[in-house]
Amino acid sequence: MRAHPSAAICLGRVTPTVPLSRPIYQLGVVKERAITGNQKPNAPASRRVDGETVADVGEFGVIDRATAGRRQPDTTLVGPGDDAALVRAADGRVAVSTDMLVEGRHFRLDWSTPEAVGRKAIAQNAADVAALGARPTAFVVALGCPSHTPATVLDELSDGIGCAAEELGAGVVGGDLVQAEHIVVSITVLGDLEGRAPVRRSAAQPGDVVAIAGQTGMSAAGLALLASVGRSRAVELYPELVAAHQVPTPPYDLAYAAARGGVHAMTDVSDGLLADLRHIADASGVQIVLHDSAVPIVSDDSAFIPPLLSDAAQFLDANPMTWMLTGGEDHAFAAAFDPSTPLPAGWRPIGTVRDGHGIVAPMHDTESGGWHSFQ
Amino acid sequence: MRAHPSAAICLGRVTPTVPLSRPIYQLGVVKERAITGNQKPNAPASRRVDGETVADVGEFGVIDRATAGRRQPDTTLVGPGDDAALVRAADGRVAVSTDMLVEGRHFRLDWSTPEAVGRKAIAQNAADVAALGARPTAFVVALGCPSHTPATVLDELSDGIGCAAEELGAGVVGGDLVQAEHIVVSITVLGDLEGRAPVRRSAAQPGDVVAIAGQTGMSAAGLALLASVGRSRAVELYPELVAAHQVPTPPYDLAYAAARGGVHAMTDVSDGLLADLRHIADASGVQIVLHDSAVPIVSDDSAFIPPLLSDAAQFLDANPMTWMLTGGEDHAFAAAFDPSTPLPAGWRPIGTVRDGHGIVAPMHDTESGGWHSFQ
Repeated sequence: MRAHPSAAICLGRVTPTVPLSRPIYQLGVVKERAITGNQKPNAPASRRVDGETVADVGEFGVIDRATAGRRQPDTTLVGPGDDAALVRAADGRVAVSTDMLVEGRHFRLDWSTPEAVGRKAIAQNAADVAALGARPTAFVVALGCPSHTPATVLDELSDGIGCAAEELGAGVVGGDLVQAEHIVVSITVLGDLEGRAPVRRSAAQPGDVVAIAGQTGMSAAGLALLASVGRSRAVELYPELVAAHQVPTPPYDLAYAAARGGVHAMTDVSDGLLADLRHIADASGVQIVLHDSAVPIVSDDSAFIPPLLSDAAQFLDANPMTWMLTGGEDHAFAAAFDPSTPLPAGWRPIGTVRDGHGIVAPMHDTESGGWHSFQ
Repeated sequence: MRAHPSAAICLGRVTPTVPLSRPIYQLGVVKERAITGNQKPNAPASRRVDGETVADVGEFGVIDRATAGRRQPDTTLVGPGDDAALVRAADGRVAVSTDMLVEGRHFRLDWSTPEAVGRKAIAQNAADVAALGARPTAFVVALGCPSHTPATVLDELSDGIGCAAEELGAGVVGGDLVQAEHIVVSITVLGDLEGRAPVRRSAAQPGDVVAIAGQTGMSAAGLALLASVGRSRAVELYPELVAAHQVPTPPYDLAYAAARGGVHAMTDVSDGLLADLRHIADASGVQIVLHDSAVPIVSDDSAFIPPLLSDAAQFLDANPMTWMLTGGEDHAFAAAFDPSTPLPAGWRPIGTVRDGHGIVAPMHDTESGGWHSFQ
């Protein structure tokens, strides 16, 4: 039996591939509509017995353990424990987005720790409001799981959610916990534009500079490694790529910097760079032309391709540009900027906007083995 | 093949047990983070072929059909089609709550239509923010389903969600659509307190009048009928009770009336009247004493028991008070009011608050077959 301390402790971002041997930690999240409301923020949490399942602990037991001791930011006016929470929306508007992760489909617990899954769920939601230019202020978490789920799995999942939210300065203000066939994590994020205009996908203009913040292809490479050589070997060879797959690290500050000036349209790269740029082009009624230098021929070991990706691609006999152009889930940001203002620091130009539709990029020709310009 | 019209049409609350033969209708909801953003609000939606599955239509096909033509209220500043939505929060705060419904656990498609499931999901979320005193302004919907799900099921589910939201004056502003083993509907609601203080569970005071708005036990009776005699027979005998189980109708206006004055603590009745009053008692550190007249002996055909419940209970040889005291999902509201102000119209007094803890109610004694006071 291990005792839970009376206050939640987040140890910063724990690389999920490193075995967790934290002597003390605390659960994150998951308040329920039916929560009894008698949790005391700093009450000692209940003890855990190894081998306990969610059914043993009971819904309210899980919730009690998940909500005890979690800090709330100033924006949380009413936190867990009521029918609904109340969150400050200082400028009179609130950004909102939702994402659902399903076990076996979006994550595997033999490839990721529960904590990593929680962190990933927070990151992908936070990236969505950041792409609008908003800072996350609060999350609500609806969680489904089988009754035989080990209680420790929910504890660690909650821990990942709670700590990742806390690192963003946001509260986990409510939730729901229900029985389901598989683990399903459904998170909704609220965000604050801090008085700024929302950054839509639909306002790219001919002449704009297309730029990217953050790195794409890392998550896809990590996934390819996990699928090819298994977790142990993949972690041994390329821990950074596996970690990138397990927990994306969106460059939020670069998105906020873009939103503060010069950006016309922005999105986070969740489906793949080409696909997400296509969303901007379609929504804006324009064409995006990628520079040749942004999509180099593979034999050019261009500075555009991080050595880590080149190396892993060589190891797997794969194409790093495919990862970088079509791999999703890194949650980098792509945007179209007014050409008359300098790009914010950290943004790399990769193309331009012009009249037309779709994406024009030099693409790999499977016939010749080379690349050609392709719309 | 049936064509979708170019504008969403909600036909008001359709009693779910009545076969739907609407000549035209339109889908409701479910925008995705990866939505292409090129939906035109009034573009003709795509046509449907009978027998098509979600896999046939594709994720974006489902989303296109679900978002086309749905009206958005003035509070929706950025609707579906971007990474995140933006909703007005006029008084600088936003209420938020989330609930997840899982097929086979919270609903069965042989007992409810997909449209009814969508309406129920909206109602139970809306009741949560109403219990805080807030009016729903927006919903986001994360939906998981198997790829072999008939596209019509999602269309009708979306229709139920979209129409129920529209009837509340709220927008469905975003969503996510993913593959899952079963249908999972995870909804988050945002709400507006319109300048009022939030109504917590924790502020009931000794001397307060405990009152209820709406009817409890109807949903439990409907469920018991469905389980006992099957859908066709249950609908034939007690259509109102089956409908109450399929789609709860929370008395939202009575919750807002309470929030406008005199109420100290409020909750919606989702887990059962006794359980939810217990939540208020625990959160407030008080005891709630139910009047004998509110919990009549069964042989007393008290006015407190609706004839419909008495009748169905007799038919099933069941106890209507068990339904009324422990049946959840009606989403009535229970509250503690300042005794110096008159109860708002529509609220019925059922007890009082005093020092102590827990609930005191006359309870059925299984030994004697009578009722006794029980804490």
